[in-house]
Amino acid sequence: MDTTHQISKVEIIPHRIKAGQTRIPNIKNIIAVTSGKGGVGKSTTAINLATSLAQLGIKIGLLDADIYGPSIPILVGERDFKPEVLDKCFVPLEKFGIKIISFGFLIAEKQPAIWRGAIVGKALDQLLYDTQWGELDFLIIDMPPGTGDIHLTMCQKMPITAVIAVTTPQDIALIDVIKSIEMYKKLDIPCLGIIENMSIHICANCGFKEAIFGEMGAEKIAKDYNLEILAKLPLDISIRQSSDEGSPIGFEDTQIAKIYKELSLRIVHQVSLLAKDYSSKIGKINVL
Amino acid sequence: MDTTHQISKVEIIPHRIKAGQTRIPNIKNIIAVTSGKGGVGKSTTAINLATSLAQLGIKIGLLDADIYGPSIPILVGERDFKPEVLDKCFVPLEKFGIKIISFGFLIAEKQPAIWRGAIVGKALDQLLYDTQWGELDFLIIDMPPGTGDIHLTMCQKMPITAVIAVTTPQDIALIDVIKSIEMYKKLDIPCLGIIENMSIHICANCGFKEAIFGEMGAEKIAKDYNLEILAKLPLDISIRQSSDEGSPIGFEDTQIAKIYKELSLRIVHQVSLLAKDYSSKIGKINVL
Repeated sequence: MDTTHQISKVEIIPHRIKAGQTRIPNIKNIIAVTSGKGGVGKSTTAINLATSLAQLGIKIGLLDADIYGPSIPILVGERDFKPEVLDKCFVPLEKFGIKIISFGFLIAEKQPAIWRGAIVGKALDQLLYDTQWGELDFLIIDMPPGTGDIHLTMCQKMPITAVIAVTTPQDIALIDVIKSIEMYKKLDIPCLGIIENMSIHICANCGFKEAIFGEMGAEKIAKDYNLEILAKLPLDISIRQSSDEGSPIGFEDTQIAKIYKELSLRIVHQVSLLAKDYSSKIGKINVL
Repeated sequence: MDTTHQISKVEIIPHRIKAGQTRIPNIKNIIAVTSGKGGVGKSTTAINLATSLAQLGIKIGLLDADIYGPSIPILVGERDFKPEVLDKCFVPLEKFGIKIISFGFLIAEKQPAIWRGAIVGKALDQLLYDTQWGELDFLIIDMPPGTGDIHLTMCQKMPITAVIAVTTPQDIALIDVIKSIEMYKKLDIPCLGIIENMSIHICANCGFKEAIFGEMGAEKIAKDYNLEILAKLPLDISIRQSSDEGSPIGFEDTQIAKIYKELSLRIVHQVSLLAKDYSSKIGKINVL
């Protein structure tokens, strides 16, 4: 393992959430991983980021909120896990140093979740508030793609500290991630930056680099919205293989794992720059 | 152009829709292109299929129903098109021999559509019923990904003849397309078959074939659900390039275009095997 990425002790403090919202006791910060478009690697990013953060000694939870297509159970190799219920609360899966809960643990794998928006909102509430998270520095939420009902409900109700936007360099993905960035801006939730997935393919045979999904897409958005590019991940067969095998590549000792490690350090840094949460110290102020 | 794919005249007849639904006058068949997961190439399939069908002399309309991430305006190179309104109806864009309407034509490109489910349903109704389609053999609907609210509303209200399922070979895409197939089965709407996108990457430099997103995924589902594999499209930079350039590759004279042409012939064949719609001949039967 590259020791330059080792830091002796990371102390994470709670940061400011939207006015009117209440922080969940024991959860210092909630980070939502979002994308406008599906299939850009949002869940892969969420699990690998969580794994890398856990390796830094940070207390991590992961909530898979993609009700219509929960991918986390496959990505962690636990398609058949069913959480115990203790004191009316779900006991999360603990794997790779992460506490994990997913819609996918609660529904049959092949059944479509043909649920109306209001029910989804309630189910999400339950997963967030009725899971025995214990003490968490970060709870990472793997958001559903898009900017619809579920997002509105989640952002209005859940005390999200900040979001991370995931995209590929392709125009039709970029246009959707811009929508997502605009939505969080309107909802007054800060964006930590952009992660570009599938940015280049390197031929396993000859090493030829091909920008299958285009080039310089994330740079343009980063410039337009004054955001940082947090990481660029190549279109690499090993990422997909480790995903399908349920063993996050962030947990291994490879070039790709290094990118995720650097990403996790950058996230810790970006979060540390956010305004602190003094609410517990100054109490609640009532405007009369 | 390969003349073996030319057919002198294709006569398309209306096929049966779900009991209780009413066929839209002038629209013989509605084909929904669906996927469980986003980013698998659903919109790319919809536009290229529409283009290839139009080249067979079939009267084609395309409705981009992906309210939260409409990609069709980019794919046809008309990001700034605004439809005229005539007699309280939208006049669709006519391009590549297709009549096209999209949510993307009606909203500002960068604005997120933070709309609740009920409003989306009404907006969709309007796009379907209040567009001057003229006479159509097929109206292709580019569905939003997932199996949520919008799908329920659409499938209950809209007289869909059949669906086509699009996926990549990757496990986390397959699991979602299975959900979608199960949903349409429950809703009693026939599935014409599966299209596998990004099935193999061929290095532009050395020709090395790499199954970046896995292998044999569609075959397994096809077998399990007794469905046909309608086409397999490679992960090819030319498809993405033509997509971002707004010029469907199905319109060109390439190896990829040939696959789409064969796909369109297969679709015509599969539709012809469906039960006919005799409702106009026997009138409405009221059960007393």
